Amino acid sequence: MRLGWIGLFLGFPWAAIAQTQSVPAKPDVVQYHATIDVVKYVYGTAPPVARLRPGNILEANSLDCFGNAIKKPGDTLALTKGDNPLTGPFFIEGAAPGDTLVVHILDLQVDGDQGLGAFAPGFGALNQTNYTPMLHAPLPEKIWFYPIDHAGNTATFQALDSNYKVKIPLHPFLGCIGVAPAGGEARSSIVPAEFGGNMDAPEVSAGNTLYLPVNVAGALLYFGDGHAVMGDGEIAGTAIEVPMKVRLQVDVVKGKHSNWPRFENDKEIMAAGIYRPVDDAVRIAFTELVAWIHADYGLSELDAYELLSQVGKAHLTEMVDPNYVVVASIEKKYLPPRK
Amino acid sequence: MRLGWIGLFLGFPWAAIAQTQSVPAKPDVVQYHATIDVVKYVYGTAPPVARLRPGNILEANSLDCFGNAIKKPGDTLALTKGDNPLTGPFFIEGAAPGDTLVVHILDLQVDGDQGLGAFAPGFGALNQTNYTPMLHAPLPEKIWFYPIDHAGNTATFQALDSNYKVKIPLHPFLGCIGVAPAGGEARSSIVPAEFGGNMDAPEVSAGNTLYLPVNVAGALLYFGDGHAVMGDGEIAGTAIEVPMKVRLQVDVVKGKHSNWPRFENDKEIMAAGIYRPVDDAVRIAFTELVAWIHADYGLSELDAYELLSQVGKAHLTEMVDPNYVVVASIEKKYLPPRK
Amino acid sequence: MRLGWIGLFLGFPWAAIAQTQSVPAKPDVVQYHATIDVVKYVYGTAPPVARLRPGNILEANSLDCFGNAIKKPGDTLALTKGDNPLTGPFFIEGAAPGDTLVVHILDLQVDGDQGLGAFAPGFGALNQTNYTPMLHAPLPEKIWFYPIDHAGNTATFQALDSNYKVKIPLHPFLGCIGVAPAGGEARSSIVPAEFGGNMDAPEVSAGNTLYLPVNVAGALLYFGDGHAVMGDGEIAGTAIEVPMKVRLQVDVVKGKHSNWPRFENDKEIMAAGIYRPVDDAVRIAFTELVAWIHADYGLSELDAYELLSQVGKAHLTEMVDPNYVVVASIEKKYLPPRK
Amino acid sequence: MRLGWIGLFLGFPWAAIAQTQSVPAKPDVVQYHATIDVVKYVYGTAPPVARLRPGNILEANSLDCFGNAIKKPGDTLALTKGDNPLTGPFFIEGAAPGDTLVVHILDLQVDGDQGLGAFAPGFGALNQTNYTPMLHAPLPEKIWFYPIDHAGNTATFQALDSNYKVKIPLHPFLGCIGVAPAGGEARSSIVPAEFGGNMDAPEVSAGNTLYLPVNVAGALLYFGDGHAVMGDGEIAGTAIEVPMKVRLQVDVVKGKHSNWPRFENDKEIMAAGIYRPVDDAVRIAFTELVAWIHADYGLSELDAYELLSQVGKAHLTEMVDPNYVVVASIEKKYLPPRK
Repeated sequence: MRLGWIGLFLGFPWAAIAQTQSVPAKPDVVQYHATIDVVKYVYGTAPPVARLRPGNILEANSLDCFGNAIKKPGDTLALTKGDNPLTGPFFIEGAAPGDTLVVHILDLQVDGDQGLGAFAPGFGALNQTNYTPMLHAPLPEKIWFYPIDHAGNTATFQALDSNYKVKIPLHPFLGCIGVAPAGGEARSSIVPAEFGGNMDAPEVSAGNTLYLPVNVAGALLYFGDGHAVMGDGEIAGTAIEVPMKVRLQVDVVKGKHSNWPRFENDKEIMAAGIYRPVDDAVRIAFTELVAWIHADYGLSELDAYELLSQVGKAHLTEMVDPNYVVVASIEKKYLPPRK
Repeated sequence: MRLGWIGLFLGFPWAAIAQTQSVPAKPDVVQYHATIDVVKYVYGTAPPVARLRPGNILEANSLDCFGNAIKKPGDTLALTKGDNPLTGPFFIEGAAPGDTLVVHILDLQVDGDQGLGAFAPGFGALNQTNYTPMLHAPLPEKIWFYPIDHAGNTATFQALDSNYKVKIPLHPFLGCIGVAPAGGEARSSIVPAEFGGNMDAPEVSAGNTLYLPVNVAGALLYFGDGHAVMGDGEIAGTAIEVPMKVRLQVDVVKGKHSNWPRFENDKEIMAAGIYRPVDDAVRIAFTELVAWIHADYGLSELDAYELLSQVGKAHLTEMVDPNYVVVASIEKKYLPPRK
Repeated sequence: MRLGWIGLFLGFPWAAIAQTQSVPAKPDVVQYHATIDVVKYVYGTAPPVARLRPGNILEANSLDCFGNAIKKPGDTLALTKGDNPLTGPFFIEGAAPGDTLVVHILDLQVDGDQGLGAFAPGFGALNQTNYTPMLHAPLPEKIWFYPIDHAGNTATFQALDSNYKVKIPLHPFLGCIGVAPAGGEARSSIVPAEFGGNMDAPEVSAGNTLYLPVNVAGALLYFGDGHAVMGDGEIAGTAIEVPMKVRLQVDVVKGKHSNWPRFENDKEIMAAGIYRPVDDAVRIAFTELVAWIHADYGLSELDAYELLSQVGKAHLTEMVDPNYVVVASIEKKYLPPRK
Repeated sequence: MRLGWIGLFLGFPWAAIAQTQSVPAKPDVVQYHATIDVVKYVYGTAPPVARLRPGNILEANSLDCFGNAIKKPGDTLALTKGDNPLTGPFFIEGAAPGDTLVVHILDLQVDGDQGLGAFAPGFGALNQTNYTPMLHAPLPEKIWFYPIDHAGNTATFQALDSNYKVKIPLHPFLGCIGVAPAGGEARSSIVPAEFGGNMDAPEVSAGNTLYLPVNVAGALLYFGDGHAVMGDGEIAGTAIEVPMKVRLQVDVVKGKHSNWPRFENDKEIMAAGIYRPVDDAVRIAFTELVAWIHADYGLSELDAYELLSQVGKAHLTEMVDPNYVVVASIEKKYLPPRK
């Protein structure tokens, strides 16, 4: 049910029409292969691994959140070199501070036959963490292995403490996608924030477009942390973690900038709010959505607020990373025509 | 797409089979009509307005959250006598502390031709409130009137600051439903907590079953605050507020008790977590769901935690009342057979 | 360093001068003795145990938070009948909704030779609780016994896991003091809220005056949960818990009302904020203090806000009860003369 | 009441004795002068402005949080180039990842005759901010000017909306002090976190010693954001902001490392917890303090937890920056001898 890249142009961003119309009918494809030796663990300024022009398609891969180090029962988290190794950065020609980077997610395919779930120290919504510490003994490290059935498009959960098995349909997405932060900051690959990052948002899936604020020349796009599928909140601390084959198309909207990541597809507009507690993530996401509706669809802020109270959606993507992520959304069918 | 009451028996609670099988083929129907003179504003111990036996169907009504006092443009919130007037309490024969009250939501119909949305002082996720006070001037009081189209099953949003109109499909539910609290407490009709109450949960809709802990003899069931439809979080502070015609069937599970409200239908089990901040509501909802899966479906707690990390859902019903509400759920197709 | 009651009249509330000047030179003393058979576990409407007139002094006692049931090593929390048994309610003549109840704390003496600290299930800032639940095994139940040295005014901490002992100076206060809540609510004796209650505030100590909103005729004053001394946050869930001998003087300010409890002594004015998370308790406390300074001392709200940013104090009294409590204060020496 | 540097050696850190005894009787003094052209706005890796050996004294200065750009009524915040310009970084010889940087605060003097308080956009505990956004109009920008009386050691608050003035005793401290973060991160000068930073902690004052985890070779020490005095929580968003003359002595403890900043003086040990909401800052601070007491003073964790429940202190230093800061402390007189 993956959309081809042409379908993506039905719904797209602020004033992007002129620019995307100039994209050649057959966009250039840039290919890149990431390995453990060249991944990054920080969103920041670093020499680009490749350069993309607006309209280019990127075909690349990402390692799983453990750097592909956990392969079989008995392997432990101690084998990993770092969390969420990132593919990138990619320098996007023409992207400058104050612009918006547009990332069309064209296709994501699990790159392997197995996914992993794990209790990693310091992660989890129902256990003590680095930032919600307690005096309990930590939960024991455990790893679940999920066989991937590519033909059936499923992963199989196999209980560790009983014989129960069940198939789960895949919904592949990138847990990490982001750009170099503003103000000279550099942030760990486990952190989501204004620049995107470890949002663990299933919205980063084929058919959706992601908008990110450009903070440095070239934007410097990174991604990784592929997820075969994940529940709301990622409550135990991991999704079904997988290496990923990634097909993206990038674009740039000049001179427009939002404070936080945004998403769009044919049917919805979506704004991410990223902070702690969840309450503040909700407030950020919905004030951004009110502002978007006001600016692009012409409703007054208070009318937009009221309308969202009746038809808005709030999606808690994760409550386990250093910041929490909520994506607020509204279906376009409830909005006036875009100005 | 409303289910008849028979359909509800496909999925139901702990050991309820014996009891519900003894329900007569044609259950008794009790009828009750609420007016502004007999409504309550507190969940607590009060003389019952009617008595129900397990298996009985109740046909009753509820006033809107403003006591049906706001009728036309120009009417103000000052006309209301109190928030969320409640129909009830209903005494359920045989319900005793330690039991579970079962409420099958059979049918809900908007009882009138108009719904209301309003900025009420002290409510709203994007403005200061009594419990998140600030030094800003409050948002101005505003009221939106939503014509209800019963045939089309829609309400119409009409912007106040422009000419924009749009139809919204109805999803009628009760914002308030609860029992007398434990420990001799009595709580305002604006509060959701362990006893249910102002959960503003769209899960309280036709086709779903609600389980509430019984804290006093007869349980003392109350309900009200009908909503024609509502977005996640109820962010502006109200849904489309309507009087409601209500058709419920009650039952009792003896000697079983959960700490928090639970929901169930043919496809899902759902546990409510109710507190502040949202983070703790999420923790409560998912620990309850882990406990439920462990007790009734036999997975170990850690296997249940991991499985929920991949397929669990979290629904923020409201973030505007004195406590916030999250409903965590899992589809039954992912669970082993119930024990 | 306890003040006699006369000293208390140097600093007192809004327009209370006329009223308190009419207090007879030798106020009437009412004596009352509480036992486990007559204590209450809920702040609400109940038949008063005694009636007091404004200006009366009450000499009474309170049981410890365990109902005096834990007496020696080996006794367990299972022996307790309920948490925080309350002495009262006392009906204050002339107190009506919209008034303020004034409680001068004249004298508090530990009523016994031993205090208790305990890990009670569901309490504690560094372990999972009912409202911040996790999947860890709970901390083991433990009880510390603190010998009280009345002459030396100390309690002695004796480590359970080593031979270490240390003396702690006493600062006796009432963990619980409150009135019947507004709107027909009744709240458990473990809850602090607008009506006061389980504030666990060392500010409820000899020399301070407490102001509480009157919500029902006679106010209905309750108190209990004596603490010999307590650290900020009461982080393990209990203070040094003791029975208490209590000497209070009550008064009423007619027609003035604050939303939340307030304190005052010769040197400071103090406003309590009570909710979760601590952030919101801080916001409530400081907005109340801004309002108080604006109303009674004439600074503009923004000048008051700025001044508090330089000289205000914030005291986290507890972070372990169902709501958390922060007392914000300012020394009177920084304020203009009271209007 | 400022202590000379010799007094500081009465209480100091883990196994530091051997090292500090080797400090020469007359330590070398390094002098450095910061100007707006060389300040930094990020804690991270940058070329050092000077190098210090353990035992060296640094005499330097810092600009105020506005870069000394606001000089007189009528000047606006638009004149500032960035928030919290930082002096540094200083490379400390021998400091390596896994070590602890020791900073003795020897002397701090307000470097000028005027301090500033301001409502800066996005800061403030009682107004909407970037991370707690709402739909209200923001509070108006306002600036208060505080004359400094060096002889009298006071600043004078002058109300903007009335004629009221009052003197406030100075307690000079550095709002910002920190090192390069771990894991290759770089953080804005407005952020407090594990590396210290914008802690706005009055504990960073003469007579106290600060311990910071060393994350990179040389530690890379930065400081700035001098405060003449500040209330708990810094609730309006600024202290009395001043340029500062700074006298520090640095040292290194090899092979010991804490997760979060710690403080110490003759009388107390203090652990900082830094995150959102305040609840989690409290949890971090107290779990760190429990761990410190357990490791260095030999009490079991549960005994330490109980003791802190009776005599621990919690200081909310600020609730206005991107993370919030709580310093938990205990007086040494309550602890066993240090191991």
